[in-house]
Amino acid sequence: MGFRYEIRLSGSGGQGLILMGIILAEAIGIYEGKFVAQTQSYGPEARGGSSKSEVIVSDEEIDYPKAMKLDVLLAMNQKSCDEFSPDLKPEGLLIVDSTFVTQLPIPRAFQIPFTRIAREKFKREVVANIIALGALSQLCPIISPRAVESAVLARVPKGTEKLNRDALKAGMAAAKRAKKEWGQTELPREVPKEDLLDSY
Amino acid sequence: MGFRYEIRLSGSGGQGLILMGIILAEAIGIYEGKFVAQTQSYGPEARGGSSKSEVIVSDEEIDYPKAMKLDVLLAMNQKSCDEFSPDLKPEGLLIVDSTFVTQLPIPRAFQIPFTRIAREKFKREVVANIIALGALSQLCPIISPRAVESAVLARVPKGTEKLNRDALKAGMAAAKRAKKEWGQTELPREVPKEDLLDSY
Repeated sequence: MGFRYEIRLSGSGGQGLILMGIILAEAIGIYEGKFVAQTQSYGPEARGGSSKSEVIVSDEEIDYPKAMKLDVLLAMNQKSCDEFSPDLKPEGLLIVDSTFVTQLPIPRAFQIPFTRIAREKFKREVVANIIALGALSQLCPIISPRAVESAVLARVPKGTEKLNRDALKAGMAAAKRAKKEWGQTELPREVPKEDLLDSY
Repeated sequence: MGFRYEIRLSGSGGQGLILMGIILAEAIGIYEGKFVAQTQSYGPEARGGSSKSEVIVSDEEIDYPKAMKLDVLLAMNQKSCDEFSPDLKPEGLLIVDSTFVTQLPIPRAFQIPFTRIAREKFKREVVANIIALGALSQLCPIISPRAVESAVLARVPKGTEKLNRDALKAGMAAAKRAKKEWGQTELPREVPKEDLLDSY
């Protein structure tokens, strides 16, 4: 039985989760030489409901490309956090956009205000997904920051490279800060928002 | 046991198959109210090898989002045509980009020069995938041309709407012509290239 690692990116439509899944899959699959399957599902409930994109990583060909027990859940809004956190493994990693997720269903979570950083630092809410990718590259051991950067630059529109590189870096910085806070308190706690934003 | 319909889009990296899969899935899943799962796989073989993107459609939730027996195979190069045509159902539909696919593994196939149309009519090889989407919307009963147009316009970069709408229309026209030829000959035959191009 080979190694299998499951990531679900969730939130609402329009938060760029599909592009995020594709970039992540390309970063892992093409740049790091593992087998990766990347899936999104649409259904009658998709219009205006929660959106999700999954990335499964393995050291062998993937026969069942649907996530069952999550190693990582990124929740970009409260609804997806509530709906999907029961799918996490007991030791799984929950990462939330604390701009929108204010109630944590489990105590262990990294809380980073991706959308607020996008708004306040970049004046472009659309880069919240790229900031989150930067954070994932720091928080998930199987994702290399360098591979993510290559994959982002290969996928984003020409002329937006600097914006996206800066957004990635802001996400990495936020994640490093969150990890440090976590280390200091044993369990993660909400980082005072002003402090966190100052340090990007 | 519900209805299940499997589409595989295949070719080489850089032919825009992933975007094509996403647009198709969104057209079917969001605009037409069915359940849709859309998957791409990456592996150590993906670098420079064949690329594929799959869309599974069902009238119920999709538990196994990987294609097993294809209802439709789009092959944008010879390698993917050779590799994947054995996965077609006996009555499955093979659609090839005849710019690159010159040897048909099975006699029944729609041959349309997507890339050549993109080059000669639009001077932009990148729209070959959108031309192919236009053709699929004419050739696959479950895909509505209007839903595909909405999904394309929602996904392509701002400022390229006219180019992409024209590319879709060229694909639809090419497919209508190919269907007519098919009807005349019982089995499809290669349409003389000059005639075909003149009529777009």
